[in-house]
Amino acid sequence: MHAISSRREMQQCIDECLHCYRTCKEMAMSHCLQAGGRHVEPEHFRLMMNCSEICRTAADFMLSTSPLHAQVCAACAAVCDACAENCEQIGEMDDCVQACRACALSCHQMSESLGAIGVGTSRQSSTSLGNLPA
Amino acid sequence: MHAISSRREMQQCIDECLHCYRTCKEMAMSHCLQAGGRHVEPEHFRLMMNCSEICRTAADFMLSTSPLHAQVCAACAAVCDACAENCEQIGEMDDCVQACRACALSCHQMSESLGAIGVGTSRQSSTSLGNLPA
Amino acid sequence: MHAISSRREMQQCIDECLHCYRTCKEMAMSHCLQAGGRHVEPEHFRLMMNCSEICRTAADFMLSTSPLHAQVCAACAAVCDACAENCEQIGEMDDCVQACRACALSCHQMSESLGAIGVGTSRQSSTSLGNLPA
Amino acid sequence: MHAISSRREMQQCIDECLHCYRTCKEMAMSHCLQAGGRHVEPEHFRLMMNCSEICRTAADFMLSTSPLHAQVCAACAAVCDACAENCEQIGEMDDCVQACRACALSCHQMSESLGAIGVGTSRQSSTSLGNLPA
Repeated sequence: MHAISSRREMQQCIDECLHCYRTCKEMAMSHCLQAGGRHVEPEHFRLMMNCSEICRTAADFMLSTSPLHAQVCAACAAVCDACAENCEQIGEMDDCVQACRACALSCHQMSESLGAIGVGTSRQSSTSLGNLPA
Repeated sequence: MHAISSRREMQQCIDECLHCYRTCKEMAMSHCLQAGGRHVEPEHFRLMMNCSEICRTAADFMLSTSPLHAQVCAACAAVCDACAENCEQIGEMDDCVQACRACALSCHQMSESLGAIGVGTSRQSSTSLGNLPA
Repeated sequence: MHAISSRREMQQCIDECLHCYRTCKEMAMSHCLQAGGRHVEPEHFRLMMNCSEICRTAADFMLSTSPLHAQVCAACAAVCDACAENCEQIGEMDDCVQACRACALSCHQMSESLGAIGVGTSRQSSTSLGNLPA
Repeated sequence: MHAISSRREMQQCIDECLHCYRTCKEMAMSHCLQAGGRHVEPEHFRLMMNCSEICRTAADFMLSTSPLHAQVCAACAAVCDACAENCEQIGEMDDCVQACRACALSCHQMSESLGAIGVGTSRQSSTSLGNLPA
């Protein structure tokens, strides 16, 4: 019902994850390293790297049509939120803030769609995404 | 206090994650593909791929000394549990079952150590792993 | 000179790599696993997994504005060519063939642009992509 | 014959790659970010990130028993050599230098074992690692 994410929503979430991966990675490795100073402070730079990594992994789970993507998307949403908040404080990171906010929203919805609770139980693991509405 | 994971525990969890990544990847791509039949059924094979991917990512977060590793470890524990359960049903996957069980246990402890709840909040994201007891 | 890839060409190659990663991963984990038979034969399935992995890595190198991307793109082009050829033999893999061919072409050009030869030497490693024409 | 890598050599190369991935990632994200200064200069930090990424990918190809690992190992050897050389110039990076040198040596041997030339041709892609001597 309302709790089931459609294929369209999942494709959009994959888009957001790959866009956020790309934005975080590129800004960290070009803008942040070139700018130096507060842009290479440990907390900020780790968040940028963490965010790019979990976005890439969340996309990978959804591309694998895995019924276990919900909890990975929940983790991705949390990291994206933390990265967006931190980038706002650092400043001059608007593209990153925007990409993280959009990805967090989409991943949060995805994490609720199939229910992050109970992932890993035998009932849950038999869920097939082949049954999703188009 | 007792809820804080030491560096030693984290290094062990990284070991377990990389070992589980390696075991799942190698068994899926050699044993399962060669054996065919139930070993390449979608649910089983997806779990093997998902498990190797999230184990690699959880290790990456811990190697990055990220304070956000707790929720990623929680997701990793859930996927490892699901993979272990499924591999037991498939049979002839003892190495994989063992690696998944050990990794799930270690990741579960790691996810509780810093608290998966509240990850992404400003308080949590300012936590530094540099303060961990050795 | 003519051998220098512009930023525009690199952004397009990143696009092609991420599209090929996505296509190979999704077709392998949904279409191939569901279809079974020749679609899960070891050689074919390994190529699909290898191709998605190296495409993701090649994109990562280019996003890192690394002067060492040339040799990774060369490896990516070789794997994409092998995957495209194999997918044509298997049949019913048109999207994958198309994505692999486009990615191989783009990566091949990228691997020639800065010269795969000499990567890792002190001269090469001091090359900065910051000097690339826009 | 002598040009064929045994399973034992490949397992050792996987060990070296995962060790080098782990060392580069951990030193970059803890030691380099904490130390700042020359440790976060763009060229050095990018090499550390590039090296960890390609090591992880080279390990993944070998774990997949892919006949296409030779060219990926060649790229890995080149990046490891560049990273080792750069880390020696930066100083205080002994663990990283050691891990990169060992990995470069092992990957270089692996890239020669099956022949990096001709990877992606139909003859090469039909090679099965299942025939490797133990």
